Amino acid sequence: MAIIVQKYGGTSVGSIERIENVARRVLATQKAGHGVAVVVSAMSGETNRLLGLAHQITEKPDPRELDVVAATGEQVTIGLLAIAIQKLGGKAQSFMGFQVPFDTDAAFMKARIRSVGGEKVQAAIQEGYIPVVAGFQGVTDEGHVTTLGRGGSDLSAVALAAAVKADVCEIYTDVDGVYTTDPNIEPKARRIPRISYEEMLEAASLGAKVMQTRSVEFGMRYGVKIHVRSSFEDGEGTFIVQEEPGMERLLVTAVAYDKNEAKVTLVRVPDKPGIAAKLFGTIGQANINVDMIIQNISSQGSTDLTFTVGRADLPRAKDIVEKIAKEVGAERVETDSNIVKVSAIGVGMKSHAGVAAKMFTTLAKEGINIQMISTSEIKVSCVIDQKYTELAVRALHDVFGLAEPGKNG
Amino acid sequence: MAIIVQKYGGTSVGSIERIENVARRVLATQKAGHGVAVVVSAMSGETNRLLGLAHQITEKPDPRELDVVAATGEQVTIGLLAIAIQKLGGKAQSFMGFQVPFDTDAAFMKARIRSVGGEKVQAAIQEGYIPVVAGFQGVTDEGHVTTLGRGGSDLSAVALAAAVKADVCEIYTDVDGVYTTDPNIEPKARRIPRISYEEMLEAASLGAKVMQTRSVEFGMRYGVKIHVRSSFEDGEGTFIVQEEPGMERLLVTAVAYDKNEAKVTLVRVPDKPGIAAKLFGTIGQANINVDMIIQNISSQGSTDLTFTVGRADLPRAKDIVEKIAKEVGAERVETDSNIVKVSAIGVGMKSHAGVAAKMFTTLAKEGINIQMISTSEIKVSCVIDQKYTELAVRALHDVFGLAEPGKNG
Repeated sequence: MAIIVQKYGGTSVGSIERIENVARRVLATQKAGHGVAVVVSAMSGETNRLLGLAHQITEKPDPRELDVVAATGEQVTIGLLAIAIQKLGGKAQSFMGFQVPFDTDAAFMKARIRSVGGEKVQAAIQEGYIPVVAGFQGVTDEGHVTTLGRGGSDLSAVALAAAVKADVCEIYTDVDGVYTTDPNIEPKARRIPRISYEEMLEAASLGAKVMQTRSVEFGMRYGVKIHVRSSFEDGEGTFIVQEEPGMERLLVTAVAYDKNEAKVTLVRVPDKPGIAAKLFGTIGQANINVDMIIQNISSQGSTDLTFTVGRADLPRAKDIVEKIAKEVGAERVETDSNIVKVSAIGVGMKSHAGVAAKMFTTLAKEGINIQMISTSEIKVSCVIDQKYTELAVRALHDVFGLAEPGKNG
Repeated sequence: MAIIVQKYGGTSVGSIERIENVARRVLATQKAGHGVAVVVSAMSGETNRLLGLAHQITEKPDPRELDVVAATGEQVTIGLLAIAIQKLGGKAQSFMGFQVPFDTDAAFMKARIRSVGGEKVQAAIQEGYIPVVAGFQGVTDEGHVTTLGRGGSDLSAVALAAAVKADVCEIYTDVDGVYTTDPNIEPKARRIPRISYEEMLEAASLGAKVMQTRSVEFGMRYGVKIHVRSSFEDGEGTFIVQEEPGMERLLVTAVAYDKNEAKVTLVRVPDKPGIAAKLFGTIGQANINVDMIIQNISSQGSTDLTFTVGRADLPRAKDIVEKIAKEVGAERVETDSNIVKVSAIGVGMKSHAGVAAKMFTTLAKEGINIQMISTSEIKVSCVIDQKYTELAVRALHDVFGLAEPGKNG
């Protein structure tokens, strides 16, 4: 008997009708001879409604109490889904975070999982039950309720799959898999049947919205095979797995873009040691994540220093940088949130040169100026003017041959 | 430092504004120098909304899962109230049922409290926190979430008060105390400043809606002083306490009525041993509560057997009785749900005769026929035609002198 953990997001359980639909899918999997546990999110809109109530009281509600309120969203779904499975003749039992348990640290609203006790869920599966587990929530050593933050339910599913040694963790979502790029921009985008954890990690952090980085990371660390599928139609979806010999070896697997960054430039900073350390130390202390950093070569004793942050953090980052600019005698600070980061991703480029060159040439041919560049072993990213997003994505998708499976660009 | 447990019902926390109002009241109590814990219900309408979702799936949802869903109602309130208290500068921490814990048996939807761990709540009070505790919910030995059924939040409050050795348990509700009778029927009804547990128990079981029997019973058993007060206006409310020498000694303390019963009569039952045992045994097995039972004296070898049940149980009771009527050769079965039970209650009547006689005379004077009578040490109840409810209540309230404090009827 294979053990399968299935995860359904808010849209998939957004109404009683859809919950009943999920119940049918889960039961069908069990009837096919598998052991099944299911992890669910709050009904779509519910988490926002709950947080909204708290924010009616104050702009900054206590994170511990916010988690108590927010955790009810998933709790309602597990009860309803268990009832729906039972109505169809199945055996089901719901599990809240503290009942599994998902042990976490006490960082409310963004708790990290420390360990997952799989025993009770495993025992229930063995007895023919379908455990219906609340995603997104956990419990501290001291019994406080926590939530895991954005993408938390995916993480719950992957962590549970690791704990019960599941053969696969199926993530049901409103898209039918991971694509070579955003199909809304490039109609020729193709579903990727298998992608490595590393590539998926890059894709997620570079703007692909299918799965959050932390769930993929967790899956990679514990070797959980993840299967992204549509909850509305049958289809083969995308497997996220260990890089394996049989995998399609394209140089580039996907083209991603991220409109969520903003650029900050310190113009004409005196070229003295310690300034960058001071700047990024202060920004780090303010809990602002910096993505790309570029420092041009010095000319006439001064230099330009450019970096990107999340767009939401730009106002805070600007305040900090302007203060430091005065202190160190920089000429001025410029910011630009009208940018996009376009990336080519693929484990294939590890062993091949030329991907970066091909990317720069392609963008140049389209008349697109590259503002910043950053590379890793399996990706090349360029920051460009946001208005070129679609043009750049389509040109790169095309030049790397992603529309035609098996053909390298 | 006195320890006060305050309980606010669904109407009192029915909106964000009202929750903020409760926060102010709770804080004011703490600022007056007391240690305070607060127990709350779900926002009004919320429990019904949640149960409604489950009933959209099936008419008979699994009680365990229904409790998982229903318990979220109180959970939302405790988080919001804790946030509201913090916003006003107070220290607050919410407690779910499993966090206190309220240990219960596994009778889902109507669990009974086995024990309450008061240590964490007590410690929080000592540290200057206001513990905000979810009413209505508990947890079994095995970690399943339970709910306590009707009136559960009052019970939670009284049980918590016992566990933390509170000086008083204040029940805030939409009335400002216990009255000599229903003020909607008798405008001269008077608030009772102090009432004994025994009288309150009778009043609750005889139709007074202020508090459920089980909370009063619990308070009586553990000697918890209960104070019923209005959550919308300041006032002295009603203390429910041990009978004490200083208490006002009226023969009759209150007049109650209950429209929630129905009458069943087996006409001309053969007068043989074992028939009543069989009848009430079967009804008991069907989980139907029988209140009053009357058997007339036998004439010509047969008798009439009359009893009352809750109105909601009448259809089921009728089915059972009609089956048994055939088996034992009774002539026919008659039912009547057009009745009311009117009761006079008072510890004073323990040591005085004549209350029953005065009651019968008063009803007779008004031309009201008494269909059934039942008495205990501290109450006399009569079943009459429902159309006489108001007439009977006013006449009895008057004849026992309840409108004028200190004067016995």
